[in-house]
Amino acid sequence: MMTLLGSSRRDGNTEYLVNKAVEGIKHTEIYLREKQIEPIIDQRHVPSGFDKVEDDYEALFFEFLEQDIIIFVTPLYWFGMSAQMKAFIDRWSQYMQDKRINFKEAMKGKKIYVITAGENPHPRTAALPLILQFQAICEYLGMEFADYIIAKGNKPKEVVQDTMALAKASLWNEELKNTK
Amino acid sequence: MMTLLGSSRRDGNTEYLVNKAVEGIKHTEIYLREKQIEPIIDQRHVPSGFDKVEDDYEALFFEFLEQDIIIFVTPLYWFGMSAQMKAFIDRWSQYMQDKRINFKEAMKGKKIYVITAGENPHPRTAALPLILQFQAICEYLGMEFADYIIAKGNKPKEVVQDTMALAKASLWNEELKNTK
Amino acid sequence: MMTLLGSSRRDGNTEYLVNKAVEGIKHTEIYLREKQIEPIIDQRHVPSGFDKVEDDYEALFFEFLEQDIIIFVTPLYWFGMSAQMKAFIDRWSQYMQDKRINFKEAMKGKKIYVITAGENPHPRTAALPLILQFQAICEYLGMEFADYIIAKGNKPKEVVQDTMALAKASLWNEELKNTK
Amino acid sequence: MMTLLGSSRRDGNTEYLVNKAVEGIKHTEIYLREKQIEPIIDQRHVPSGFDKVEDDYEALFFEFLEQDIIIFVTPLYWFGMSAQMKAFIDRWSQYMQDKRINFKEAMKGKKIYVITAGENPHPRTAALPLILQFQAICEYLGMEFADYIIAKGNKPKEVVQDTMALAKASLWNEELKNTK
Repeated sequence: MMTLLGSSRRDGNTEYLVNKAVEGIKHTEIYLREKQIEPIIDQRHVPSGFDKVEDDYEALFFEFLEQDIIIFVTPLYWFGMSAQMKAFIDRWSQYMQDKRINFKEAMKGKKIYVITAGENPHPRTAALPLILQFQAICEYLGMEFADYIIAKGNKPKEVVQDTMALAKASLWNEELKNTK
Repeated sequence: MMTLLGSSRRDGNTEYLVNKAVEGIKHTEIYLREKQIEPIIDQRHVPSGFDKVEDDYEALFFEFLEQDIIIFVTPLYWFGMSAQMKAFIDRWSQYMQDKRINFKEAMKGKKIYVITAGENPHPRTAALPLILQFQAICEYLGMEFADYIIAKGNKPKEVVQDTMALAKASLWNEELKNTK
Repeated sequence: MMTLLGSSRRDGNTEYLVNKAVEGIKHTEIYLREKQIEPIIDQRHVPSGFDKVEDDYEALFFEFLEQDIIIFVTPLYWFGMSAQMKAFIDRWSQYMQDKRINFKEAMKGKKIYVITAGENPHPRTAALPLILQFQAICEYLGMEFADYIIAKGNKPKEVVQDTMALAKASLWNEELKNTK
Repeated sequence: MMTLLGSSRRDGNTEYLVNKAVEGIKHTEIYLREKQIEPIIDQRHVPSGFDKVEDDYEALFFEFLEQDIIIFVTPLYWFGMSAQMKAFIDRWSQYMQDKRINFKEAMKGKKIYVITAGENPHPRTAALPLILQFQAICEYLGMEFADYIIAKGNKPKEVVQDTMALAKASLWNEELKNTK
């Protein structure tokens, strides 16, 4: 199990929620802000293929590929995931052509969870484009979109007032304990 | 009028379409790949506010703020805009607190066009999360979501076969000529 | 407060949930299946306007107009609300032209809750088109889209296993008790 | 090929568009307003199954099942299809259990086109919940969501000013001529 945190902020609301969800469960925790991940240079149609990129991505990506369960954790920025997280996902395209792996086969069957939080407009509707995007990604790759938490909170720790989001994180914790 | 190109590739399908749309019209053309734009460090709730960031963003942002019409041009990467374009938008949050400007007032009334292109699954449905996201952004900021083109095309120039997308770009060209 | 039940079935999952949500609270309960509501005949552009329709709608509509809080309760049929509930909403168009009332003014500020339930594909994503539709309706009319419950359940009473949906219904119950 | 018209109005905008799309092509034209179609009574979980319904549905449904190509034509009412069309779709559920046919097998591979029209808010965004709904229906049943037209027009024949919608209808006409 891996948690992928796309926030640029320490100790934010989404981090608080994912900590509850994975409490007491062995997992790999990735703060994307601590990694250097370049945005993709699209060379899918260049005869020589993709150039090697000198950053932290490839090592992280191969670790990611080994996971059965991934929790994507991102604040809701402008009705979508953070650019940091999108850069992580965009780079997948490079590996769809990589002969060392069978990308689609490796992604298939992974269990995906999403945690997001925002404030205004209320995230229960503001997060819908993001949820639709993850649903489409999961369907395309044959991953299971296991569940999502949309929480209300903007200032650090504000999310502790979102009773339903906390309850859902606890419920996930029980489920995830039983899975692994 | 400004065109904002979020592709990492030269001479791609979305670039081809926007060139048709703005042919013969004076405008500022921004290739985001040529700019250094750091992803946002969210310091909205830090008492001292946002640190100054040493990159190309602020100069670009102030030029952007002066435009009446903006055409966002992005390939469809994983059912959304490119991370490069998302980084551009995420950084707006920094300026919502900036006392030098009234961000919401400055954004209000801008006319927004979106061009995207993808291939598989067919972009006519795959692009819907992206379109919903731009719609939400426009509504939140009081901008007018004037129109969008969803084109089919992946390999460079493949879009020339998408008759409807080309027709729409020509139609925009007429409209935009009459506006300015 | 009014509950509007769009299911054709007695004692279904959505009915179970709304009963929990309004327990102990005075309200008007409308089973749409017990009312005769004709689908709209669109006469918006007929010079003489809409013909009077001989069914149960007008009396129900005027009662509806007086409510501050409405809970729309519908099973998820084919990724949307039931036709019975859609017929109720479609008929609003007739009253947008009715000189006896100011429809938009009367709708403004109403608080809208939505309860839906389905099974396969999982309603957490299958219900998104429905939720987007209610969001758009609320925005258009200046109503507040207060919250929604998406529950899993198909066979009668299956929803009792959806812990989160039950918890949310209880939470609504507390909120609604404090409102009225 | 079958066209299914969900408008309650003669000679409306969507009817105008579908006429252009199927001009010169042999097809079955169904005006849902001329059929008596009861909303579904959900008896999926009643041991004896669904009661026979005395209306025009079953004959129409079996004709529908024989089609390779179906064009759903509906005005945009409250960000969705008309209740008349939804009643047609809801009744499918009855036949998922019908031992005379293999419903899912019979639906699989059908080519689906959608035409809708509205005015305010602009249908290019207002129609998105409807398009997402048809996309979900098609995916669930293994049908091909071939294309959609979202047209602007409210008053009868207003759609003649929507150049792009007309162009798309003509393009469909060519495609459909070549298919059949």
